[in-house]
Amino acid sequence: MTRQVRLIPLGGLGEIGKNLMVVETQSDTIAIDCGLAFPEDDMPGIDLVIPDVSYLIERKDRLRGIVLTHGHEDHVGALPFVLKDINVPVYGTRLTLGLARRKLDENFEGEVDFRVFEPGDIIDFGSIQVEPFRVTHSVSDSVGLILRTPAGTIIHTGDFKLDQTPVDGEPTDYSRLARAGDEGVLALLSDSTHADRPGFTPSERVVGETLDRVFQKAKGRIIITTFASNVPRIQQVIDVAHQHNRKVCVIGRSMEMVVDVALNMGYLRAPLGTLVDPSDLGKYPHSKMVILSTGSQGEPLSALARMSCRDHRKVEIMEGDLVIMAASPVPGNETMVSRVVDNLFRCGADVIYEPESEVHVSGHSSQEELKMMLNLTRPRYFVPVHGEYRHLIKHAQLAVATGVPPSNVLIGENGTIFSLSPEHCEIIGVVQTKNIMVDSSGVGEIGDPVLKERKYLSDSGAIFVSCVVSSTSGALLSMPSVKSAGFMKSVRGEALLAEAGKRIKEYFDALPPEGLLRREFLEEEVASLVQKLVRNETGRRPVVVCSLSTV
Amino acid sequence: MTRQVRLIPLGGLGEIGKNLMVVETQSDTIAIDCGLAFPEDDMPGIDLVIPDVSYLIERKDRLRGIVLTHGHEDHVGALPFVLKDINVPVYGTRLTLGLARRKLDENFEGEVDFRVFEPGDIIDFGSIQVEPFRVTHSVSDSVGLILRTPAGTIIHTGDFKLDQTPVDGEPTDYSRLARAGDEGVLALLSDSTHADRPGFTPSERVVGETLDRVFQKAKGRIIITTFASNVPRIQQVIDVAHQHNRKVCVIGRSMEMVVDVALNMGYLRAPLGTLVDPSDLGKYPHSKMVILSTGSQGEPLSALARMSCRDHRKVEIMEGDLVIMAASPVPGNETMVSRVVDNLFRCGADVIYEPESEVHVSGHSSQEELKMMLNLTRPRYFVPVHGEYRHLIKHAQLAVATGVPPSNVLIGENGTIFSLSPEHCEIIGVVQTKNIMVDSSGVGEIGDPVLKERKYLSDSGAIFVSCVVSSTSGALLSMPSVKSAGFMKSVRGEALLAEAGKRIKEYFDALPPEGLLRREFLEEEVASLVQKLVRNETGRRPVVVCSLSTV
Repeated sequence: MTRQVRLIPLGGLGEIGKNLMVVETQSDTIAIDCGLAFPEDDMPGIDLVIPDVSYLIERKDRLRGIVLTHGHEDHVGALPFVLKDINVPVYGTRLTLGLARRKLDENFEGEVDFRVFEPGDIIDFGSIQVEPFRVTHSVSDSVGLILRTPAGTIIHTGDFKLDQTPVDGEPTDYSRLARAGDEGVLALLSDSTHADRPGFTPSERVVGETLDRVFQKAKGRIIITTFASNVPRIQQVIDVAHQHNRKVCVIGRSMEMVVDVALNMGYLRAPLGTLVDPSDLGKYPHSKMVILSTGSQGEPLSALARMSCRDHRKVEIMEGDLVIMAASPVPGNETMVSRVVDNLFRCGADVIYEPESEVHVSGHSSQEELKMMLNLTRPRYFVPVHGEYRHLIKHAQLAVATGVPPSNVLIGENGTIFSLSPEHCEIIGVVQTKNIMVDSSGVGEIGDPVLKERKYLSDSGAIFVSCVVSSTSGALLSMPSVKSAGFMKSVRGEALLAEAGKRIKEYFDALPPEGLLRREFLEEEVASLVQKLVRNETGRRPVVVCSLSTV
Repeated sequence: MTRQVRLIPLGGLGEIGKNLMVVETQSDTIAIDCGLAFPEDDMPGIDLVIPDVSYLIERKDRLRGIVLTHGHEDHVGALPFVLKDINVPVYGTRLTLGLARRKLDENFEGEVDFRVFEPGDIIDFGSIQVEPFRVTHSVSDSVGLILRTPAGTIIHTGDFKLDQTPVDGEPTDYSRLARAGDEGVLALLSDSTHADRPGFTPSERVVGETLDRVFQKAKGRIIITTFASNVPRIQQVIDVAHQHNRKVCVIGRSMEMVVDVALNMGYLRAPLGTLVDPSDLGKYPHSKMVILSTGSQGEPLSALARMSCRDHRKVEIMEGDLVIMAASPVPGNETMVSRVVDNLFRCGADVIYEPESEVHVSGHSSQEELKMMLNLTRPRYFVPVHGEYRHLIKHAQLAVATGVPPSNVLIGENGTIFSLSPEHCEIIGVVQTKNIMVDSSGVGEIGDPVLKERKYLSDSGAIFVSCVVSSTSGALLSMPSVKSAGFMKSVRGEALLAEAGKRIKEYFDALPPEGLLRREFLEEEVASLVQKLVRNETGRRPVVVCSLSTV
């Protein structure tokens, strides 16, 4: 048996989200996580982005399973799409599978072979054995993975922080990591999300302490928003509300789902009578209520965004309300969050939103924790994962600072094929990967050319020309129709479209009377004539489409 | 004479940028600043936004002048547009007018009556006397204004921080402010940009100290980017470079312009031979060079963004280069900045970009400075200016904390008419204001309806239908042409467009043979038919435009 293993990230390296790492030996392939990403600014009309798993589809026969580290969308969200092509067993902890199952119930018709594991279990994939170990993160029941392979032991941290006082009392399993380090670790694959943040990430408990102080002073209604999946934080909100004799009402689809799953599975505990139904909101005075709402990212259709625009059926924001934004904006969402905060103030609420206010802490390790992970495991090779390119580089610098030789640090991007053996590590090639975009109607139907056209459309709009010509003489049979969308709605704009019509007529009038030219040629000529006119007159470059009909 | 004054912000309240405050008495009107704003995410194709000054145009006859507080774009950038309609004298300090003049040279054809003042001068506008006083900010020669009006003394801070060790040695004039406070201040209008930041903003000197430490260790070429207008920071870069025996080369149009103006006017000093021309870059070893570049906001066409894509004519980024991002991203620019940083790393450079690295400090006051300003001036009324809505509210809370009665704090938005007299303050109405959008070709030609259409276009693209019907029978004379842009470029998309053509034909075939119906009616019917088909089949909602020609 070859003492060699290959690692192929199909997502999560050099970008945020859609995490998926392929691990393969000569005989077996497994995937770690199967996440989605949210669209970037330059992907209008796109709802989400999933990894390109062509590589896994080609290896269907030797793919033994998908192992999940935790239940966040960027680690489990692509399952409904990927399982359509490769329905292999899916492994995870109870809560992770509980959350994944709900996602699949919404979007997936087939049967899924879910297999629950607990930290310490050994899952046998032939030439690879996987042992999950406990890590702390911003969703309960998260794990990292110890993989025993023919080349040696590989540790994949999943997403993690080293919270010394986690809300559920289960810290990252330092002892198991130390033992793995003692036994020898071939490679460490570690979460780079916050590799550029100095120091330690504060414990989730800090948020509970802040909430306690804030609740102490609050006189009116309290409305809190956070990431729907942050079960430890939801637990703290319930606990603090109970201590201050307040009821908690959960509002917003995704948060209702998570609370339902976590309560049913025992990951969330609420004293009897603490949780109340939205329909009972009117029964309690404002001073006795906490509303736990979705919308921490300012999503326009979320419960909180609707409240901020006085557009929510059940909750009307008013003076005396205190809104707590217990989340920081994910990069790209800053403007949406600011708008919601501004509008909440306009409604008369007070809002706690500053990062300094300690109502949010991250779920990812800062630099001191990342170095601790490196020192506990003392890997021969280091592969930074989960992060944009700068985070991978910063993480690599931390690894070198802890003693990993620079030549043993491997930085790649999605599709990079890393080959590791006890003697040697190298990048041996690249697998083609691309973003698969999902929108309202389909998966992968919108590609870069369409997005590029949309960019032009949104910058300057479009002009549509329609001409009718004689199929025999090629002469124009009526004045061309010139319409526009998203272009200019001014007198000058109208005049310009009329002028375009005249120029097109002149163009046809000047054609030699030798019968009809090729339709596509004429359409291009007309479009280009209009493009030039508009560019000269306005500097704008709208998309111009011409239809030529013959009768 | 009525002891009353009116304040009407035409920009800068409840938003970032395009600052313009109107101050008027019974007989005289003046404007403070005349800035532009950069477009928000939902304004595709727009280059900049300027204030709606219809109110000033109506009062042309009594408008005595525009007084500038400093030379930043959001305070002077709208001058070329506004002066076309109201060519009144423009007042400012030497550097402020120097920067404004360059902007006008590029965009304005007429003569401008520039009037230089210095801190301590008194400018007489009839019933209003204006006395500028020194403030520290991230551009040199900034001032605030003390306005003597029939109602009492009004202080407008401009943009400011209380830098105790400014690079040019000229701190904010505490003594003048204290004296004004002793004499009695009717109202304070104060910069709210960072009213949600606790503590003190660090001194600009901190950046110089950091640069000194970084330069000490750097072995290769150093590339620094910052805001082009930050003269004090450019001074520090030149000073530190000189101390470390490095030459400085300025690259990028806007920075070259500012350096040129500031050097010529004596606001920037460079030891002989320190500044070198880009064409001489090849003459010096990398270890002796500093490149000072535009692109701190990741602007795609900026010098640094081009370098990061290996697309700059003069500078090729390579291993050994150190890039210093001496600026924080303006809200909304985070993603662009991240992309540039990632690409610089991909080119092999090391990049210093973290906020923790102290290579950037803000030019605006934090909470302790704002409270100090309130306590120095002890105003009867307080009007927070320059900030989004949440900043105005936070600033109002600070004012109340320092003892201003809540009823004496006035929070408004653009267009609000504040009326102040020694006895009374109130909001007495609203002036209509809107965003005037400027794009490649014109001012104010693109409004909200066009932007809304562009939003639809960018989300789902457009479909164009063109039909030819008989002017007598109303029958379709050829198969309708159905084309699209930004919609779907797949087999399914093509099939859907073909299906739409068939449905349109069926629609016409089913019409009663009673001659031609009204064209607009038919066009709407056809568009709506296609819209429904596409929505049912794909869930998408492209813009559908139909042209019906008759022959």
